[in-house]
Amino acid sequence: MTSPMPWQDRPKNSTDVVWRYSENPIIERNAIPSSNSVFNSAVVPFEGGYAGVFRCDNKAVQMNLFAGFSKDGLQWNIEHDPISFVAGNTEMIESDYKYDPRVTFIEDRFWITWCNGYHGPTIGIGYTFDFKTFYQCENAFLPFNRNGVLFPEKINGKFAMLSRPSDNGHTPFGDIYLSYSPDMKYWGEHRCVMKATRFEDSAWQCTKIGAGSVPILTKEGWLMFYHGVINTCNGFRYAMGSAILEQDRPDRVKYRTQPYLLTPQTPYECMGDVPNVIFPCASLHHTEADKVAIYYGAADTVVGLAFGHISEILAFTKENSL
Amino acid sequence: MTSPMPWQDRPKNSTDVVWRYSENPIIERNAIPSSNSVFNSAVVPFEGGYAGVFRCDNKAVQMNLFAGFSKDGLQWNIEHDPISFVAGNTEMIESDYKYDPRVTFIEDRFWITWCNGYHGPTIGIGYTFDFKTFYQCENAFLPFNRNGVLFPEKINGKFAMLSRPSDNGHTPFGDIYLSYSPDMKYWGEHRCVMKATRFEDSAWQCTKIGAGSVPILTKEGWLMFYHGVINTCNGFRYAMGSAILEQDRPDRVKYRTQPYLLTPQTPYECMGDVPNVIFPCASLHHTEADKVAIYYGAADTVVGLAFGHISEILAFTKENSL
Amino acid sequence: MTSPMPWQDRPKNSTDVVWRYSENPIIERNAIPSSNSVFNSAVVPFEGGYAGVFRCDNKAVQMNLFAGFSKDGLQWNIEHDPISFVAGNTEMIESDYKYDPRVTFIEDRFWITWCNGYHGPTIGIGYTFDFKTFYQCENAFLPFNRNGVLFPEKINGKFAMLSRPSDNGHTPFGDIYLSYSPDMKYWGEHRCVMKATRFEDSAWQCTKIGAGSVPILTKEGWLMFYHGVINTCNGFRYAMGSAILEQDRPDRVKYRTQPYLLTPQTPYECMGDVPNVIFPCASLHHTEADKVAIYYGAADTVVGLAFGHISEILAFTKENSL
Amino acid sequence: MTSPMPWQDRPKNSTDVVWRYSENPIIERNAIPSSNSVFNSAVVPFEGGYAGVFRCDNKAVQMNLFAGFSKDGLQWNIEHDPISFVAGNTEMIESDYKYDPRVTFIEDRFWITWCNGYHGPTIGIGYTFDFKTFYQCENAFLPFNRNGVLFPEKINGKFAMLSRPSDNGHTPFGDIYLSYSPDMKYWGEHRCVMKATRFEDSAWQCTKIGAGSVPILTKEGWLMFYHGVINTCNGFRYAMGSAILEQDRPDRVKYRTQPYLLTPQTPYECMGDVPNVIFPCASLHHTEADKVAIYYGAADTVVGLAFGHISEILAFTKENSL
Amino acid sequence: MTSPMPWQDRPKNSTDVVWRYSENPIIERNAIPSSNSVFNSAVVPFEGGYAGVFRCDNKAVQMNLFAGFSKDGLQWNIEHDPISFVAGNTEMIESDYKYDPRVTFIEDRFWITWCNGYHGPTIGIGYTFDFKTFYQCENAFLPFNRNGVLFPEKINGKFAMLSRPSDNGHTPFGDIYLSYSPDMKYWGEHRCVMKATRFEDSAWQCTKIGAGSVPILTKEGWLMFYHGVINTCNGFRYAMGSAILEQDRPDRVKYRTQPYLLTPQTPYECMGDVPNVIFPCASLHHTEADKVAIYYGAADTVVGLAFGHISEILAFTKENSL
Amino acid sequence: MTSPMPWQDRPKNSTDVVWRYSENPIIERNAIPSSNSVFNSAVVPFEGGYAGVFRCDNKAVQMNLFAGFSKDGLQWNIEHDPISFVAGNTEMIESDYKYDPRVTFIEDRFWITWCNGYHGPTIGIGYTFDFKTFYQCENAFLPFNRNGVLFPEKINGKFAMLSRPSDNGHTPFGDIYLSYSPDMKYWGEHRCVMKATRFEDSAWQCTKIGAGSVPILTKEGWLMFYHGVINTCNGFRYAMGSAILEQDRPDRVKYRTQPYLLTPQTPYECMGDVPNVIFPCASLHHTEADKVAIYYGAADTVVGLAFGHISEILAFTKENSL
Repeated sequence: MTSPMPWQDRPKNSTDVVWRYSENPIIERNAIPSSNSVFNSAVVPFEGGYAGVFRCDNKAVQMNLFAGFSKDGLQWNIEHDPISFVAGNTEMIESDYKYDPRVTFIEDRFWITWCNGYHGPTIGIGYTFDFKTFYQCENAFLPFNRNGVLFPEKINGKFAMLSRPSDNGHTPFGDIYLSYSPDMKYWGEHRCVMKATRFEDSAWQCTKIGAGSVPILTKEGWLMFYHGVINTCNGFRYAMGSAILEQDRPDRVKYRTQPYLLTPQTPYECMGDVPNVIFPCASLHHTEADKVAIYYGAADTVVGLAFGHISEILAFTKENSL
Repeated sequence: MTSPMPWQDRPKNSTDVVWRYSENPIIERNAIPSSNSVFNSAVVPFEGGYAGVFRCDNKAVQMNLFAGFSKDGLQWNIEHDPISFVAGNTEMIESDYKYDPRVTFIEDRFWITWCNGYHGPTIGIGYTFDFKTFYQCENAFLPFNRNGVLFPEKINGKFAMLSRPSDNGHTPFGDIYLSYSPDMKYWGEHRCVMKATRFEDSAWQCTKIGAGSVPILTKEGWLMFYHGVINTCNGFRYAMGSAILEQDRPDRVKYRTQPYLLTPQTPYECMGDVPNVIFPCASLHHTEADKVAIYYGAADTVVGLAFGHISEILAFTKENSL
Repeated sequence: MTSPMPWQDRPKNSTDVVWRYSENPIIERNAIPSSNSVFNSAVVPFEGGYAGVFRCDNKAVQMNLFAGFSKDGLQWNIEHDPISFVAGNTEMIESDYKYDPRVTFIEDRFWITWCNGYHGPTIGIGYTFDFKTFYQCENAFLPFNRNGVLFPEKINGKFAMLSRPSDNGHTPFGDIYLSYSPDMKYWGEHRCVMKATRFEDSAWQCTKIGAGSVPILTKEGWLMFYHGVINTCNGFRYAMGSAILEQDRPDRVKYRTQPYLLTPQTPYECMGDVPNVIFPCASLHHTEADKVAIYYGAADTVVGLAFGHISEILAFTKENSL
Repeated sequence: MTSPMPWQDRPKNSTDVVWRYSENPIIERNAIPSSNSVFNSAVVPFEGGYAGVFRCDNKAVQMNLFAGFSKDGLQWNIEHDPISFVAGNTEMIESDYKYDPRVTFIEDRFWITWCNGYHGPTIGIGYTFDFKTFYQCENAFLPFNRNGVLFPEKINGKFAMLSRPSDNGHTPFGDIYLSYSPDMKYWGEHRCVMKATRFEDSAWQCTKIGAGSVPILTKEGWLMFYHGVINTCNGFRYAMGSAILEQDRPDRVKYRTQPYLLTPQTPYECMGDVPNVIFPCASLHHTEADKVAIYYGAADTVVGLAFGHISEILAFTKENSL
Repeated sequence: MTSPMPWQDRPKNSTDVVWRYSENPIIERNAIPSSNSVFNSAVVPFEGGYAGVFRCDNKAVQMNLFAGFSKDGLQWNIEHDPISFVAGNTEMIESDYKYDPRVTFIEDRFWITWCNGYHGPTIGIGYTFDFKTFYQCENAFLPFNRNGVLFPEKINGKFAMLSRPSDNGHTPFGDIYLSYSPDMKYWGEHRCVMKATRFEDSAWQCTKIGAGSVPILTKEGWLMFYHGVINTCNGFRYAMGSAILEQDRPDRVKYRTQPYLLTPQTPYECMGDVPNVIFPCASLHHTEADKVAIYYGAADTVVGLAFGHISEILAFTKENSL
Repeated sequence: MTSPMPWQDRPKNSTDVVWRYSENPIIERNAIPSSNSVFNSAVVPFEGGYAGVFRCDNKAVQMNLFAGFSKDGLQWNIEHDPISFVAGNTEMIESDYKYDPRVTFIEDRFWITWCNGYHGPTIGIGYTFDFKTFYQCENAFLPFNRNGVLFPEKINGKFAMLSRPSDNGHTPFGDIYLSYSPDMKYWGEHRCVMKATRFEDSAWQCTKIGAGSVPILTKEGWLMFYHGVINTCNGFRYAMGSAILEQDRPDRVKYRTQPYLLTPQTPYECMGDVPNVIFPCASLHHTEADKVAIYYGAADTVVGLAFGHISEILAFTKENSL
């Protein structure tokens, strides 16, 4: 990977495993003229820099996906028009809305998954080779589903996707499942991977959980950042944890953080369109440098960035596992 | 079809398109020693008589599937032990419970679908060649889903299934979708087929709808009996209607009854474990004789039977279409 | 009044103040070919016999109003087509549905009020001179409202109407209000008349109440039959009570029954489309004969009839007042 | 016990462990002039016959307790005026309402517990020596609680009571707890005894459970009949099971029926003020004769009676234990 | 209009159609000694300066109306005692509370409408000639209603009022209706004007909408600022849009903004007693100068001010219409 | 009391009866390495300084109690390990979680009460002599209960505790009750003390109320600080008021503030894990100096401090009583 990894060392007084970028938020709510907010977005290395798919809600609060580019992963140019998909492996699928994208490169192209409005939320799939032309495929699942996240390589010869079955509203429950596909068109072999916890075990993730960024293959297995939600008397609060899944059987959880890695504490995380939200959707990593940079939506309004050392996160996850 | 079709002519004073069997219920709640109730069950012609898969809730009110046999479709012998599945196209899938089966013969075997408890309700799939050995396959979908109904033949070379995405409780919404599979293992190409109606258009089906019996291929297209639900101040009331789907594109509805065909009116439909339920799960038909016999669960307690002439039902559906 | 009053003496062993007609229900659910149910309907003396406006839900469970006629108030001929209104004191008002009519003669015509679907339930108003041509006027109120009941004469020179403001669903609250109009077009001077009770005072009417039949002027004031509702763990149960309002200030309640007069006890009241409902919408009375016949919907399915002596009901209401 | 035990042998074709009295209901809803319903009531041997405390809701649907007497336990004379309590071990406690009594003799008197309305439901306590004068004591607990049932003797020198903490409405949860008191005034040492089940284990008792009749000391331990509730889409359904508790540590459950013993199946259990309710509140037993007669409220409207052999019930509970 | 219009030019880098006053909030929560908060208030030109009616919740959080005066519309003196109304066109109406006033001059006096607590929220009406003596009239409607806004002149000879029927809580729905009155006492001719949108069309206004400031007559029709609400997982968020209604038939919407004009983004809008609220209740305008100043409640705590050019707002509304 | 009272005079421009410490919050959320938040905690004079029991939620958001010490009541050293209880007057009681402690010295030891997770929230009781060894006693009550607060001396020879019966979730109701115990093991003589108010009387305390700090005996009676809650459309808002209870009959309220004393207004009260919360749990007072210092949780995240003069608070409570 030759793209210049965004990075900032841990603050001197901090002992946190994951720490915030001091210039957060890196993308403001009015980043493009039409936007009400930019958050819950995904980035990947691309042509020596970075490309991304961004969730920009416009000022009518319609959700859509936008392409964007950056040299350093910090300064982003987001296109002013939403992505216009053309038909991929099927006829064009309706989209009442598109939000919360994830992006990953598999084999020969960049695959994008997102929450697609088809008579309710479900998982939309698309791909691009160049971030110019985008193809939309069949939805992976029936409604209602959110937080579809692909693994960055085939597992046992099949594509594999994490997702969170939900209902058609502000779902007050939610667990992470795994599904396989031979062809990105038909999906099956659904397995429950991990569930929301008991309140007394780890309350920050006791209401629902959902996969966040694309899993990173490490020597311990797949490292996945995920969000967990607690239902307070004043609404949902979203925080971030990590889990390690078996490499060949990623429906099996090896370790999973009982403590969170990051929880809303700053004004841009605690105040905004939906207060108290940290929602990771992507990460960049440099294995040799032992670095990871995590992109997360903050307060459903802006994009924040956090950093950590992979080895430390793996160790923390193992030592603080549920 | 050489099995003797169960039948009773329309009562003399009746002008109803579908009418009840005078000896209803044909299966009582205590049909086998362990049963609390027998309802929402499916039957097919088998070896000159009939076989079926029955939902028997036991006296602990655990839901399970039981095989049964009949010479005339009226008198049934239900086995006293639930069906014990062996692994079909995969490892064995957990089942917290099994209920609301449908059965249909495709190509070389009888396929069974049911509501399978896998971290919530979803669609279980199994098959049998002989109603002695039963094989369980991968669940078709992620939770939460109910009312999975297979078409009795492949469509455009693929298996096709109707289902109703739901939530994890007494779902207060629900529409009918279609999905395809090349192999009964992976499913995709999900399409919305028909939705619950507006209250003012047809209130009996305004809360949710679900596919009932296996569709019957007619000269007009696929004739499907389905249930519709209204949410009264005293709970849900389930009635039965019919729809005609395009033969090659069964996600397209040609006609759909605005009036119901059958609604709870008798004591065994209005009184029982769940009052006011008519829930069709199977039908037998004789095309040349222009007859159909519809099996339905009544009050979540017993099994009822109703009759009609296919041609009349087709005509009624066309003339009274939404 | 020369119309022959429907009547049946109190059963010998009964001490009830109001008693049921032994041939109940007087109108069955399938009274006309299209009907799913006939209930919550209103009758008045007309041309030596009786006329009425009936709520017939059709087999699509669409609510509409139908005219009907009877010589004796017991045998009814209900027309097979719904009432077709023409514009009254305004342009035609939309009606998504019409239900729960009341009818009363004031000055020169029969006025009809009903629950009119105009972006939610509100009170529709119409009139007829002959039960052949029906005129529809402006809705009395903004949504959401139900159970609009006119007084049978002007009060202080103005039309007066009882109604029950509600919400847009199965309203879990509801009190009776009074409003005045100089012209049946504009309404105001809204006053709260009577409220649902505390649970411990009279639980059958502790969830909501609504005016039932057109008030009868007696020497004690206006005698009104009303329904009261309790919210049990298995849904709403509707019973009937009576109240006496001041003649010139009918927003003032003189007496109101703490016990009910009639509560669901028979199979046709306890079993049907909505179990456990008694819903009075009309009464016929003969002051000299000291008789009243009360028409009520039973189980949202059929029409029942009950009888009483006015003097006894007045005495009972006074002696058992909250 | 010299009182003549009410009894009827098991019907010839029945294999049920508990069976209904053929003349059920033994007490009708209008058993006394003021009553809307008589149900959920308790009886004990008294002076060679039986005495009881009855829940009679009057026609204002106010809940109160009434004394009653019977020679044979089948024909009951219930007094027409409610029990008037005088102060027992404290000043008089407010009672907005009283319902669901249980009665048991301990040491020198008959103790009565009931659901007492004190700013919400809690457990009222009283006693009588003669069923003529009744004394009311301090409430056992803070609100909100229901189904307080005393053990018929002290345990480890202290009074012991089962109860079910609840909320202030139609509680959708509920487990059985045990509390001790040295003096019937102060209560403590609260222990959780048994909980509602998982849906897939025993659905009839998966929503909530509550102690029913006074426990019977057997050679296996305390035999307790209890009710269990399932929340269907049309409301709660109440059935009856049995449990065996350790004699000296009755917070420990030895056995508990996975199947119910009795579930609503007859019209008087399925139709009434609250359909589908079987609610045991008392039992009479004859140890030598190996007989028990269970009194239960049916449909919140009438009183039913059921019979069984104690040895069979013990065996069934052990063999069918969760 | 000779009162000095409050104004501030658009910030240099802004392209917003409506922009905030840089000294916001103009009225703090503790503006008078008794106040917990001052918000959702209305102002009008008066005697060369401005007068207003202010919602001040006191420290017991009781809602009431207070008169206030200003020379420049920016610095306000609010009286320390609430407005004491005397009877207007009727006897005095009860007011459990008064909040969210609007004020407009029609013909000879200033009319005030507000949310009046009369057995639930409804629309109170009053008037004043001098902001010293205030007269209270009949409530316009039955409960439950909020956001009553008068047109500043008669339409077709009648007073006209916008309002939003609601329920008795935190209403999760709500559309804008129009009603007419010949005399400010009786109201009728109710028409639905505009509804909450579909989520996918304009999510900021998909839960409910309500009229804000008094409509301004422009060459395009009536320009109305209104609030729209989205129900997030952390509660309601209120933003502001604009609509243009036909001059003579203001129940007909000509244009309506799909994007919002103003949404909570500043700390005083995002943090306070109710976070994330912008609630316009009044505007001042100078037609020749093409200026409008909009007063809005912020976070249910303070009063903010925003500015715009009328011609630009009209153009924006037409070009971005739903 | 020789411990140095924390104190700061009233700000010059303030007329508030209770005012905030200018260096708030005195304890930050990350006060100890494991903590996510420190709030709702209790302090007492101890050995010439202060000791306390602190609610520290760890980064798994598990609630537990921690001991802490301070010389001045402002700078606190909280231990890094939670309190480890040993059995007090019984076997050890399960604790799924412990939160919201209160501490008071009675006779010979420091008693601690807290919300104890025993199959739901109830009131745990413990004691310590030295803040080193802690003993856990029987829970005071059955679930569900919160906010148990002991009086600092026996009343009529018995221990007395205030508490708030609740349900098992974010209880939307709640009143304060009093219970007595002869021995800290058995509790009874439960009395309702004070209830949530009507919305129109004092909306900040209309949803629920709960005792806060340990009552202070004054010449007017027991001075108690309590929290009150309003349910806004964006969740619960917690404020603080005061009440004066009769010295010998503390179930009788002499006075109770209609206005609040403190409501969330600062960023650390309005922003945090649960926005808009002020939750008093302890106070220190110096009778002769007429001073009180109130410790309160802010936004469920940090600890704040406020000051007042006892005489002024008593006067304010009397003069502004409901």
